[in-house]
Amino acid sequence: MKNLLAAVDLGSNSFRLSIGRVAEQNGTKHIYQIDRLKETVRLAAGLDSAKMLNQESIKRAIEVLHLFGDRLRTFHPDRVRAVATNTFRVARNVADFLPEAEAALGFPIEVIAGREEARLIYTGVSHTLPVSQTKRLVVDIGGGSTEVIIGKGDEPVLMSSLYMGCVSFSRKFFPDGKIDAYSLKLAEVAARREIEPITKPYRKMGWDVAYGSSGTAKALYAILTEGKFSKDGITREGLERLKAKLVRSGRVIPDQLPGIKTERAEVLTGGLAIMSAFFDEMGVERMQTGDGALRLGVLVDLAGREESHDRRDQTVTAFVRRYHVDARQATRVKRCALTLFESLFPERGEQDELKQTVRWAATLHEVGVSIAQAGYHKHSAYILNNADMPGFSKVDQESLGLLALAHTGKLSRADALIKTKDQWLAILCLRLAVLLCRRREDVSKLPLTIGVKNQTITCKVDKKWLASHPLTDFSLHGEEDEWVKVGYNFELIPV
Amino acid sequence: MKNLLAAVDLGSNSFRLSIGRVAEQNGTKHIYQIDRLKETVRLAAGLDSAKMLNQESIKRAIEVLHLFGDRLRTFHPDRVRAVATNTFRVARNVADFLPEAEAALGFPIEVIAGREEARLIYTGVSHTLPVSQTKRLVVDIGGGSTEVIIGKGDEPVLMSSLYMGCVSFSRKFFPDGKIDAYSLKLAEVAARREIEPITKPYRKMGWDVAYGSSGTAKALYAILTEGKFSKDGITREGLERLKAKLVRSGRVIPDQLPGIKTERAEVLTGGLAIMSAFFDEMGVERMQTGDGALRLGVLVDLAGREESHDRRDQTVTAFVRRYHVDARQATRVKRCALTLFESLFPERGEQDELKQTVRWAATLHEVGVSIAQAGYHKHSAYILNNADMPGFSKVDQESLGLLALAHTGKLSRADALIKTKDQWLAILCLRLAVLLCRRREDVSKLPLTIGVKNQTITCKVDKKWLASHPLTDFSLHGEEDEWVKVGYNFELIPV
Repeated sequence: MKNLLAAVDLGSNSFRLSIGRVAEQNGTKHIYQIDRLKETVRLAAGLDSAKMLNQESIKRAIEVLHLFGDRLRTFHPDRVRAVATNTFRVARNVADFLPEAEAALGFPIEVIAGREEARLIYTGVSHTLPVSQTKRLVVDIGGGSTEVIIGKGDEPVLMSSLYMGCVSFSRKFFPDGKIDAYSLKLAEVAARREIEPITKPYRKMGWDVAYGSSGTAKALYAILTEGKFSKDGITREGLERLKAKLVRSGRVIPDQLPGIKTERAEVLTGGLAIMSAFFDEMGVERMQTGDGALRLGVLVDLAGREESHDRRDQTVTAFVRRYHVDARQATRVKRCALTLFESLFPERGEQDELKQTVRWAATLHEVGVSIAQAGYHKHSAYILNNADMPGFSKVDQESLGLLALAHTGKLSRADALIKTKDQWLAILCLRLAVLLCRRREDVSKLPLTIGVKNQTITCKVDKKWLASHPLTDFSLHGEEDEWVKVGYNFELIPV
Repeated sequence: MKNLLAAVDLGSNSFRLSIGRVAEQNGTKHIYQIDRLKETVRLAAGLDSAKMLNQESIKRAIEVLHLFGDRLRTFHPDRVRAVATNTFRVARNVADFLPEAEAALGFPIEVIAGREEARLIYTGVSHTLPVSQTKRLVVDIGGGSTEVIIGKGDEPVLMSSLYMGCVSFSRKFFPDGKIDAYSLKLAEVAARREIEPITKPYRKMGWDVAYGSSGTAKALYAILTEGKFSKDGITREGLERLKAKLVRSGRVIPDQLPGIKTERAEVLTGGLAIMSAFFDEMGVERMQTGDGALRLGVLVDLAGREESHDRRDQTVTAFVRRYHVDARQATRVKRCALTLFESLFPERGEQDELKQTVRWAATLHEVGVSIAQAGYHKHSAYILNNADMPGFSKVDQESLGLLALAHTGKLSRADALIKTKDQWLAILCLRLAVLLCRRREDVSKLPLTIGVKNQTITCKVDKKWLASHPLTDFSLHGEEDEWVKVGYNFELIPV
């Protein structure tokens, strides 16, 4: 069990569970996938026009998650990561069923942003390929979104997530399964239009080899080669021949297409239109299929976190530079906040999620100054909620944004967003740290200690120190007013 | 009349009108103020605890604006700029009375951000001082906010706006005019706490001479020198003596204070506490008074706009760099958008506000990509609405933000924010420009022309061109759907 990690990928077409074993190989970690489960849930088809996911789809999803949860029961939470993609990103009622879904799985589910999905896909694909500095184009046509990445070796360079997928396109352009030349053309043009804005940088950068990593790519590869539409991989000519054949037969008839799996028939045409659009718009000539994809990327990332190569730390460091954060002040505030946090939660280790959130939020609480000084905490929250932050899930980003929003000013702003008491305490630590470091000078020893019992926060401050710091005294009294508004007593005790 | 410019400053304590004559002097323009009006409106005192401005204050303000409007009746709109500061920034009901205020004045009123106020104040103060590279600290204690700037010569370098002023502080700490040592101390500590976060960079940069530019500074200067509290300018010792005297007499008694004007008595103590806090917190030792301030800064800025040294152009250029905008694409979109705009509004000159807004919005529509590609138009709007943009009023920024928000995607997002049909047409020009430049390649000749009659937009497109650009064809059809949702017919006519 010690070397096992699990990834759950809640895609718009299928849900997948992948269990990997971590093995050291020539000094680098390698993941062997030792168990896989796949269920075709076709979640994207359950979205109505108001972007509400219907009850039937939710029920089907929960059933599959129960199944996966059963397989994962013996896993420690640190060794499982469940990510959800486009349908979860867009479904308006996601908050209504997410708790039930998490209960069924037994682990938290992270809804990840499109670019984060792209990064993980590339990580997964490149992990199965030989180490080299080859430029790789990866196209992952999912059920509800399509990720496009160019990377060099293991490092993704250009990443995009486009809002189209094989399920959504099949439903939209071929609702009853009928295929004619006009519908196919329409679907292709719609796909090309999605691709068009990203074309230029991708073409400019270029690539040595193109990989298709999703079910759509694998199905097309199998059909084209087994059906003799093309000789080697997915080619433009092969795609044209397949399209002509489908238009002639008027629908996907699995018996006439060697290589196709039954569950693919329903969503093949949408995926084919998108793939053709890539060949035309990006000028792809030939495509291989890549193994790995999202779930393997999640496993690789998880293995990295274990040995503290957490991608999120890199992102935080990059943000400090990008947004010209005063790094010294960030370090000061971080130290104070963590000292206070450790005094409240001595048992929590360095990898504890809340503790990490405090560390990152303390480092990034001033990113909003890059927009404007006035009300910068609101701008910080906006950036942290909306920016592309590699390695962070949307939930991670919301937690960071919440701490940034509440680190100064009115606490009541955060009230509606807070779910647990521990979050309030994390905010407490950050607020006091910011308050103590306000002068932007090093604080050698904390002049105060905090304790919490029920709804009462006691803050004991060195009496002498307080007398010589009237401004901090004033600010600490301000905290009394703020905390009472959100249901806490903040007792300031000079000692 | 040709050389006359007018500035209206709607401050929290007083409203001022200043008329300046522009004269060329050794190759640089110089402003001579030839007429001034001042009315002590004390608007900040009309704010209740819910930040609503009461009817009485509104009435008083409107009366004064009528008076000013009368004096300005013969001025061309391009030669008048009216700016409103802190009380207008914070009053929740500002939208309710702004139209009436503008009608009374006869000119639009721009509510400007604190940092923009700081920039204009510095511009005004430095304009009255000899040309030199001296480092100048300028402190402008207004009725509701205090601006602090360090500049070198004419260029402001550090700018801050603090949320405290002589009217608000006098009301809060000395509500009945009574002065005792404790209240004075409390007011000073509150002021120091506001100043504390900005202290470090200002002290680090340092200054050669400190100037106080507001009514508070001038009153203190007069009282301290005429009353023999200090010999030369405002000094720390002089302030201490004045405070001691006020505490002894228990209130401001004008007869005992040579140099004070009656209308200053009511707000002197709040201003004194703030000034003392600056001496203590920032380590100011001596302060002179500076002429000019906000209204002169507005005149200097206006004179600059006339000869197209518009500060806003500089800001836009700086933003292109700061947010790593693809400058070539910005230029392409700008050219297309302006060509379309000129075809709809051939009579509007380069200085026309809406035309300038289209130009700036086209240049900056992609700033939001710096936060994230997905939904970048919303991020662009956020940045343009919230960033410090020297030279731009809040109204200017809202117009820019609106165009950025509506330049792609759902038009209905903008619906509630649009006030005039011309704004819709500006959005039309920008949307079509972005659509035509989507491939990020130069567009040598526009393939379409537009016309508008009542609620119908006709878009004539070269038939041949359209046939060879199926993606643009597709996108243009998408426009039909969007415009109909906001009450326009968009007719696409291949010709």
